[in-house]
Amino acid sequence: MNGLINSLAIIGVGLIGSSLALSLKQSGYVKRVTGYGRSEASLQKGLELGVLDDYSLSLTDAVSAADVVIVAVPLGAMAGVFKQMQPALKATAIVSDVGSVKASVVQDARAGLADAFVRFVPGHPIAGSEHSGVEAGFASLYQGRKTILTPLEETSGDALQVIDAMWRATGALVENMDVDHHDRVLAATSHLPHMLAFSLVSHLSKLSEQDEIFDYAAGGFRDFTRIASSDPVMWRDICLANGSALLELIDGFKAELDQISGSIRGQNPDALLEFFRHSKHTRDQLRNL
Amino acid sequence: MNGLINSLAIIGVGLIGSSLALSLKQSGYVKRVTGYGRSEASLQKGLELGVLDDYSLSLTDAVSAADVVIVAVPLGAMAGVFKQMQPALKATAIVSDVGSVKASVVQDARAGLADAFVRFVPGHPIAGSEHSGVEAGFASLYQGRKTILTPLEETSGDALQVIDAMWRATGALVENMDVDHHDRVLAATSHLPHMLAFSLVSHLSKLSEQDEIFDYAAGGFRDFTRIASSDPVMWRDICLANGSALLELIDGFKAELDQISGSIRGQNPDALLEFFRHSKHTRDQLRNL
Repeated sequence: MNGLINSLAIIGVGLIGSSLALSLKQSGYVKRVTGYGRSEASLQKGLELGVLDDYSLSLTDAVSAADVVIVAVPLGAMAGVFKQMQPALKATAIVSDVGSVKASVVQDARAGLADAFVRFVPGHPIAGSEHSGVEAGFASLYQGRKTILTPLEETSGDALQVIDAMWRATGALVENMDVDHHDRVLAATSHLPHMLAFSLVSHLSKLSEQDEIFDYAAGGFRDFTRIASSDPVMWRDICLANGSALLELIDGFKAELDQISGSIRGQNPDALLEFFRHSKHTRDQLRNL
Repeated sequence: MNGLINSLAIIGVGLIGSSLALSLKQSGYVKRVTGYGRSEASLQKGLELGVLDDYSLSLTDAVSAADVVIVAVPLGAMAGVFKQMQPALKATAIVSDVGSVKASVVQDARAGLADAFVRFVPGHPIAGSEHSGVEAGFASLYQGRKTILTPLEETSGDALQVIDAMWRATGALVENMDVDHHDRVLAATSHLPHMLAFSLVSHLSKLSEQDEIFDYAAGGFRDFTRIASSDPVMWRDICLANGSALLELIDGFKAELDQISGSIRGQNPDALLEFFRHSKHTRDQLRNL
């Protein structure tokens, strides 16, 4: 393919899928992008916005000519997509995904893709926004951001190379990682923080001073809760797919809160100061964050 | 005073105090600003940066000529400052503060200011940043932000009017609120979110994947933990001063996390979806946030 992809199929034309398509089309790395999704209105919008060259409401039609298929649907829809597309894939087609949890996707792909599983490259671009949908897509979303690939022992080296090069063409920094390690790291840096933001907004909405509470929210609160505007379906699926890592982190996080509560109850200024100093020191060390 | 303040004393020349001084000097609302602090280097810096016209290392000297005294020290230092300055105050001097918790400050001022307590106006500008110190101050910090005043029954109407007008001169939107209500609202919108950010950074720093965890942190995490760089002394004092409101909120917040954990353990997709939808809906309604 000389570094270029002739025909790319994007399954699920949301923020992540459409940003990938836009980037690869604008740079000329991909010649033709076909979209598949459940909403024809979104697919039409994708045509208008130049995200797609064509689309199909049939999954098998959408993938049948593709050299590379990117599955960008919520985690809960992955199993069905893999199973349904498998008979229509070209014998050389490479399949990848963008799911936020990798163990569940690998399990779904192994079950659904049959022989094509050796050409499946699990992937996860560490980028996004609290906006969703095809209209939210933009070509520079991946520029300078990390994309993690989690190839398995049986993953074809050629397939890995194609997906690696594709992400590099978007400006992403590609790194490989073990599946379980990925899921633990992402639970800590993304899944847990989202649970905290959703929980904070949920709790404040129940307090009697509700309206005023949000009136007096300052900058820190705004930043802190912005991610609670993220897509609920995506987060439901992430919770179910990465449940055990997330449960462990939630328990660990609650123990930190208990430490603060204990120091407040015990009126222990030194313990509080040490706790906050340690966190500030750690956060201050995160350069470029 | 014809709307202008001849002589202002700023007790504690950090981000909040120096931003107030800069704003009032630049607009000509205040003729002369005297600073007091424990670090002569900071006071010297304040002179160089045009925050102060002069300073004293003696608290009583610093306030003796002041028409208005603004106490901008950490909550834990308030009691001592009020008590020490009281004998040196002019008989007409108006005193105010910028503390993040109001009940404890009112208690400290009542005990320390004696007869001058009727000219004490408790105040709290809802603005700040994760930076601190005199170098972090800037004149526009309060522009368009809320400042809450929590006058008591015995508070002089004239004193209230002077402090109200002073904050309006910085561009702040001034509102009055009951002391306890202020402390509950701020516990929810500021103190709890800070505890969550400090706790998240603390917990992640303990995990074995520590280094990598921070490498893979994406945008949401950055926003979410920025406030964990805030001043540890300030947050120690806030925890101790607003402990009961904060303890109640931490417990309520933990119950939200328990709801998520319970839904994950019970593999209940509908409960998770409803939880995230409700939070997203609430957050999306917060206009201008």
